[in-house]
Amino acid sequence: MAAHLDALHASLRRAVGDSACLTRPEELFVYEADGLTLNAAKPLAVVLPRETAEVAAVVRACREAGVCFVPRGAGTGLSGGAVAAEGGVVIECSRMDRILALEPGDRYAVVQPGVVNAELSRAAAPHGLFYAPDPSSQAACTIGGNVGENSGGPHTLKYGTTTDHVLGLELVLPDGEVVRLGGPAGFASGYDLVGAVVGSEGTLGVVTEVTVRLTPLPDAVETLLGVFPEVVSACRAVGGIIRSGLVPAALEIVDRRTIEAVEASVYAAGLPTDAGAVLLVELDGVAEAVAGQAERVRELCREAGASRVDVARDAEERQRFWRARKGAFGAMGRLAPDLYVHDAVVPRTKLPEILEAVCAICDRHGLRLSNVFHAGDGNLHPNISFDRRDPDELARVVKAGEEILRTCVEAGGVISGEHGIGTEKRDYMGMLFDDADLDAMLRLRAAFDPDRVCNPGKIFPATRFCMEANPRARGYDRVPFE
Amino acid sequence: MAAHLDALHASLRRAVGDSACLTRPEELFVYEADGLTLNAAKPLAVVLPRETAEVAAVVRACREAGVCFVPRGAGTGLSGGAVAAEGGVVIECSRMDRILALEPGDRYAVVQPGVVNAELSRAAAPHGLFYAPDPSSQAACTIGGNVGENSGGPHTLKYGTTTDHVLGLELVLPDGEVVRLGGPAGFASGYDLVGAVVGSEGTLGVVTEVTVRLTPLPDAVETLLGVFPEVVSACRAVGGIIRSGLVPAALEIVDRRTIEAVEASVYAAGLPTDAGAVLLVELDGVAEAVAGQAERVRELCREAGASRVDVARDAEERQRFWRARKGAFGAMGRLAPDLYVHDAVVPRTKLPEILEAVCAICDRHGLRLSNVFHAGDGNLHPNISFDRRDPDELARVVKAGEEILRTCVEAGGVISGEHGIGTEKRDYMGMLFDDADLDAMLRLRAAFDPDRVCNPGKIFPATRFCMEANPRARGYDRVPFE
Repeated sequence: MAAHLDALHASLRRAVGDSACLTRPEELFVYEADGLTLNAAKPLAVVLPRETAEVAAVVRACREAGVCFVPRGAGTGLSGGAVAAEGGVVIECSRMDRILALEPGDRYAVVQPGVVNAELSRAAAPHGLFYAPDPSSQAACTIGGNVGENSGGPHTLKYGTTTDHVLGLELVLPDGEVVRLGGPAGFASGYDLVGAVVGSEGTLGVVTEVTVRLTPLPDAVETLLGVFPEVVSACRAVGGIIRSGLVPAALEIVDRRTIEAVEASVYAAGLPTDAGAVLLVELDGVAEAVAGQAERVRELCREAGASRVDVARDAEERQRFWRARKGAFGAMGRLAPDLYVHDAVVPRTKLPEILEAVCAICDRHGLRLSNVFHAGDGNLHPNISFDRRDPDELARVVKAGEEILRTCVEAGGVISGEHGIGTEKRDYMGMLFDDADLDAMLRLRAAFDPDRVCNPGKIFPATRFCMEANPRARGYDRVPFE
Repeated sequence: MAAHLDALHASLRRAVGDSACLTRPEELFVYEADGLTLNAAKPLAVVLPRETAEVAAVVRACREAGVCFVPRGAGTGLSGGAVAAEGGVVIECSRMDRILALEPGDRYAVVQPGVVNAELSRAAAPHGLFYAPDPSSQAACTIGGNVGENSGGPHTLKYGTTTDHVLGLELVLPDGEVVRLGGPAGFASGYDLVGAVVGSEGTLGVVTEVTVRLTPLPDAVETLLGVFPEVVSACRAVGGIIRSGLVPAALEIVDRRTIEAVEASVYAAGLPTDAGAVLLVELDGVAEAVAGQAERVRELCREAGASRVDVARDAEERQRFWRARKGAFGAMGRLAPDLYVHDAVVPRTKLPEILEAVCAICDRHGLRLSNVFHAGDGNLHPNISFDRRDPDELARVVKAGEEILRTCVEAGGVISGEHGIGTEKRDYMGMLFDDADLDAMLRLRAAFDPDRVCNPGKIFPATRFCMEANPRARGYDRVPFE
C-alpha cells in the first residue's frame, strides 16, 4: 500500500505545495487529537491550504485516492470533531486567516475559516462593532471551527450561538464542487442551507469562507459577582433574574471546587474559598439602563441568599471577576493530570435538581467533580478531574459521563450545548433520537456526502452507517491504507 | 377517474371525519389561491385535521392514492406557497389551534401550527413575555405558516425572523412517519434540522407542533415619526442611525404615494401629504435608555434632512403612527383593484440607489409604484397597483417585477426577504443560484421527500424537477386525476 500512499502525498503536494503538506510521523503526531485527548487517531497526511481552490484540489485528490478527509481549525474542540477518526487527510485551515471584507455600514464581515475568533472582534472594534459568539477558547479557536461546532460562549444567553451570526458560507462539497450559500443580505431565499451546515461538524463539506454578522459594541457594561452559600441558591438567583424579564449578557456559575482550584492557581481572583458558588452576571447596553439593571440584579441575588454582591468598579476589576470563570479550565490542571469537560443542556428551571443528581453520580463513582457553567442557558459543564493512567478511574469517568447525559436527557435536555457530538458522544445519540430522527439526519448527510468521505465517524452512532440511508455509499468507512 | 377520486375522498373522511373534509367545488374555491391571487390552482380536497395523528393519516391516504399534498395555515402568504400548484390535497391547519404548553420560567411555548401569531403573544403577555416575529398579517396568520415562510415583520431588525425563535418542531414526513426535531432546550445535538425545515415552504413535511422561544416584553417603547423631503434623505437617516450603533426595534419607511393613499383612506393618520417620505423608528428597552436613544434618533433624523420629528406622547399616538405603516396595504385598495407586493433584500447601504432604480423601472413600464419597507433590514416592498383585467398592464407588472429582482440581485441582494419563493419566484431562483447551488437544495429536498409529493411546484424552477437529484422519484409531478 506504500506506493498508493506515496501517490496520495504527491498529489496533495501538487494541490497545496510542498511546504503546506505534512507527511512525516513527527509532524502528524500533533494532529492525532484535538481538545478531547481520549479519542486519538493518526491521519495519512495534513495539508495547510491558503485558498478555496487549494481546498477543492485537495478534496479531488482525496477522492481520486479513495480516502476521506477531515476539516480542522485550531484543534481546540472538545468532542473529537477535528480528528481523523477513520484515517484520511486532515485539511487544516489555519493559514486561511484573512479577513476578506469588513463592511461597518452593513454590519458584516467576510472571513476565511482560519481567522481566529478574537482577531475578528479586534479588527471590528475600531468601527464600534464586534463578533458576538465568544467561546472560552476565543483567543485560539477559529471561525471555521466555530461554524463546524456551532460554538457558543458565556454571552450566548443574550447573543445566541454561531448559527445566529453566520449569514453566508462558501463550501467545498465532497465532490470538489464549490457552492455559495446565503450572503450578506442575511435573508435566505430557498432552503436555509447555511443553517444546516452550521453545526454539522464538517460532515457536509469544507467551509472555505464565512460571512458573519457584526454587532454594535454596547455603550456600557456592568459586571457583578454574587457570593452564595451553595450552588442551589445561585441557581435560584438565576431563576429570579430570568423571571424578572432581564436579559443579561451572561449568567455564569462557578462552584466551590472550581473556586478552590482557581484561587490556588495563577488565575487567583480573590474569591472567597468558603463560598458554595459564585454567580457572575454581566449586563450590557446603554449606560442609563445597565446601572438600574445592576441594582435590580443585586437585590435579586440577595433575595436568593447571596452573602455578598460586588459590582466591578472598573475594567480591571471586571477582568478579575472574569478570571475566575475563564481561568477555570487552566486551573483544573492542579487537581489532576486530565480533565473531562462535559457539555449538556437542561431546561433552566431544572438546574438545581440536575446539579444535585450530577454530584450524586460522581460521588457514587468516587470521582472529583467541579462545575463551571452557563447557568442562564441551562448549559452545564460538569468537569471531571482524573488520571488516564489509572484504567479503573478512566472507566468510571466514562460510565459517569454516560449517566450524566442520561439524567439530562430524562429532564428534557440535550446531550450537547456547544461542543458538538464528534466521536465523543456519537454512541449516545440514541438517548435523544429514535431511528426515524436519526434517519432524517442521515438522509441530509447523504444528500451532501453520499459516499461518506467527509469527516466520517462523527455524530452518528458507530452502528449506523450512511449506507443505510444511501445505497450508493461505497464503503469509504474503512481507510484503504491500513 | 371519478371512482379513484371518490376513494380518495372516502379515505380522507376516515382520516379526519366527515365535517373536516371539504370536497364540493364551492368549498374548494376558497382554497384556490392565497394572498398572491395571480397563481390559482384547484385542490382535489381540503382536510382540516385537529391532531398530529390525523395529519399522518391524511398523508398516508394521499400516498396510497398517489396524490400530493400541501400544508396551509391562514392563507395570508404572498408567494403562492399554500396553493395546490399541482393539484392534490390541501391540509389546512387552522383547527390545530391549541397552545399546548406555556413555560414562563424557561421562556418557551409549545403550540399547534394553527395558533394565530398575535394570539400567542396575547397568551404570553400576562407573564411579561411575547412572541417576537410580527408579520403585518399577525392578526390572522398562523405560527405554522410563519414557520413555512420564515416570516419576519417590522421588528425583524432587532428580533430576527421566525428561524431565530423556533426551538423545536414535530413534523409528519412525506412517508407518514412523525419525527421530533430540536426541543425547548434550544441547543441542537446533531444536525440543525429545525433550521432546515423553517423556511422550507412546506416542501419537507407537514409541521404539526412548534416549540417557540418567548421574549421578555420591553419595559418601555418610544416611537418616532420623522418627516423627510424625499425617500433618499430618509434612507440617509437610516444609515446614520445604524452607524451610530443604535439597534432600534423597527426602522420603517413609507413613501409619498403610500402616504397619499393612507391619508385618503380610513387609516388616515394625519401625515403630511406633501412629505416625500416618513421614517418610523421604534426603540424599546429599559425606560432610562430609550428616552436618551430617542433624543439621539431625533438629532440623526434632523442631520439627514428631516423637516420634522415627532415622538409619540402616548400609546394612542404610537398606534396612529403605526397606522400609516400597517394600514398601507389596505389603503392601496383605493389606487387600483389589484396590488402586487414585492419582497427583496439589498445591503442597507445600497437602499438609495436601488430605490431610484426601482422607480425608474416602474416609470419606464408606466406602472404605479409605491414603497413601504423595512429599511433597517434593507428589505424592500415595492408595491405595484394594477388592474389584472388589463392584460397588457398585467404583462408589464410581471416584466417590471423581474427587472426589480434582477436589480436587487446585481446589488448583492436576494429575491425574497420574508414572503418565500413559492410559485411566484421559482423561475427567478436562477438569478441567485447556479446549478450546483440548486442541486444542493434539491438534494436536501430529495432527502426528505424523494417522491416529490410534499407541496410540489414551489421554490425550484419549473424546469428542474427533483428527478434530477433523485432517480427514485416516481413522477408525482402530475396529478393523476386530471
